[in-house]
Amino acid sequence: MKAALWHGARDVRVEEVAEPQIQPGKVIVRVAWCGICGSDLHEYMAGPIFLSAKPHPLTGDCAPLIIGHEFSGEVVEVGEGVTRVKPGDRVVVEPVLSCGKCNACKTGRHNLCDLIGCYGMNGGGGGFSELAMVDEGMVHLLPDNISYEQAALIEPTSVALHAVRESRLKAGDTCVVFGTGPIGLLVILAAKAAGASQIIAVELSPQRREMAKKLGAHATVDPSQTDTVQAIREITGGGADVVFEVTGVEPGLLGAIESAKAGGQIVIVSVWEKPLTLSPNAFVFRERHLMGSFGFRNTVFPAVIRLISDGRIKVDELITKKIPLDAISVEGFEELANSKEHIKILVTPRGAKEQVTG
Amino acid sequence: MKAALWHGARDVRVEEVAEPQIQPGKVIVRVAWCGICGSDLHEYMAGPIFLSAKPHPLTGDCAPLIIGHEFSGEVVEVGEGVTRVKPGDRVVVEPVLSCGKCNACKTGRHNLCDLIGCYGMNGGGGGFSELAMVDEGMVHLLPDNISYEQAALIEPTSVALHAVRESRLKAGDTCVVFGTGPIGLLVILAAKAAGASQIIAVELSPQRREMAKKLGAHATVDPSQTDTVQAIREITGGGADVVFEVTGVEPGLLGAIESAKAGGQIVIVSVWEKPLTLSPNAFVFRERHLMGSFGFRNTVFPAVIRLISDGRIKVDELITKKIPLDAISVEGFEELANSKEHIKILVTPRGAKEQVTG
Repeated sequence: MKAALWHGARDVRVEEVAEPQIQPGKVIVRVAWCGICGSDLHEYMAGPIFLSAKPHPLTGDCAPLIIGHEFSGEVVEVGEGVTRVKPGDRVVVEPVLSCGKCNACKTGRHNLCDLIGCYGMNGGGGGFSELAMVDEGMVHLLPDNISYEQAALIEPTSVALHAVRESRLKAGDTCVVFGTGPIGLLVILAAKAAGASQIIAVELSPQRREMAKKLGAHATVDPSQTDTVQAIREITGGGADVVFEVTGVEPGLLGAIESAKAGGQIVIVSVWEKPLTLSPNAFVFRERHLMGSFGFRNTVFPAVIRLISDGRIKVDELITKKIPLDAISVEGFEELANSKEHIKILVTPRGAKEQVTG
Repeated sequence: MKAALWHGARDVRVEEVAEPQIQPGKVIVRVAWCGICGSDLHEYMAGPIFLSAKPHPLTGDCAPLIIGHEFSGEVVEVGEGVTRVKPGDRVVVEPVLSCGKCNACKTGRHNLCDLIGCYGMNGGGGGFSELAMVDEGMVHLLPDNISYEQAALIEPTSVALHAVRESRLKAGDTCVVFGTGPIGLLVILAAKAAGASQIIAVELSPQRREMAKKLGAHATVDPSQTDTVQAIREITGGGADVVFEVTGVEPGLLGAIESAKAGGQIVIVSVWEKPLTLSPNAFVFRERHLMGSFGFRNTVFPAVIRLISDGRIKVDELITKKIPLDAISVEGFEELANSKEHIKILVTPRGAKEQVTG
């Protein structure tokens, strides 16, 4: 079968690899669509970062590895003992790998597992591939009204919904989203679903500010033109209840902190390449709260499926391009690296011409 | 009457000043004991910091000012309309000044008032004085079993109890206190009162580690001799539930962050002179929570009075010296600045020889 393998930075190759052979408790999925994640792009540009250069303790695999972890497809074969799905079922894959034994796992925080891994990043197989074999526990049935394309957005939407669910945001609250890449935009959708009454998007790119508005932001701020903190204090009447930081750069987090009201909260959803300098007094004198949010946990995937299914989270607008697997480097990674025009590019191993729909 | 006035850094003078003249809604207290706060010491060494160099919006006063805000005494006169106390009543003064009109005040967060002030720091009078006139709402009756000396500790204990009450600490949790000056030691007492099952104190000074143990710390760590984070992870089995940062210096906060478990919380109780450098990934990858705690709110003072009265917070050990008002600079500020021997020094305007007891 064909699959895209990461060999090194800027070296992702679509190759012929052996098809997975079914095993007990496993499910083989014929991939319909797999999204390119921001972390895939980071691995493409400058990896290995999270990607396993050495054998990962949970999979034993290391590069070159099949990549892709935001995918949907059809069950084609199930192993001995599998009862949850059967061939022909439409599914989405939850790619978190965890040990089940550490303190974090034992308290339900699988996303903080000491050995945390991700299918399609740390071995086991991946979604940029014709077939993907996963544990039975990793597949979720799709309702009829969620298309395979929409289903490829369930994983990144889970990252956003987890951040919102773990935050102190309550219905009617004001919130700000700093940075509206794919995850920032999904945070807007998740905050809206959670009842935020005012959502302000802070973003340099005019296209993305436009998209933020289309998705439900009540106001947008261009930090290159405006005193962001002052603007947010004016709009919210003194500071926002909850501020989501999705830029990963120092001015973003410093602005996010100052935009939160006294007793307000800042939620960091981004991953950081560099340390930064700040004064803890910004937390002390205003009793602000800060938390980090990382990935998502077991219960979030089904919640996202329900919210997409009943129309309260609409992800279609985020899909800006669909490409065949062979084009993943040139039309996928390179295009995302060179332009802010695209939000989410979906990849199918079924060939460019074939339409895959719900 | 005699009072201690701050004129400038290292320039506190005990002078004759006019006695306060009673006004409607006000209460005049004959001061029994007033504690020297860490912030008083900072103002003495390097002020003005919080102390008002320019007229404070809530009092109109500025330096030279009477200082002292941790005090108890006897009501000697009440103004028109005062019903809460009468002459002869034993009271403690809650010194927070707030506007009552800003967003923070309107949501009950008086300690975060836009105009926040402190009686004995920003004008109005102070506790290092024979008589102090305060608003009726600022006095709390003392139960018979709380001495005036113990009552002088109610204010700093409120700072500590507020931090613990605002934290996520639950009965049975593990906790760490970085820095065991007066507030750090009081955090140990407050955490014990809140049901912490394991309290670890991190402190350079051997005398203060000894005091921490006496007050209820189950273990102490000397960061000059031990890998603090590793030691705490071993003792707690992977990281503490809640970590209180009371050092105000970079290694303290960085150690506090790394000592919290996945999903654990760091509470900053200290005020910072300098910014610091940290990686937000320490919050993201472990989903740690951070919050600042500043002073205390309205409901905390009565809670501390109840906890001291029923013996669940015992503050006597912290009082290491009692001095007359005339000695405040030499035997008070200078001694605190030059030695770690003292925890809390109490000052009385009644003269060194006079015993003031419950």
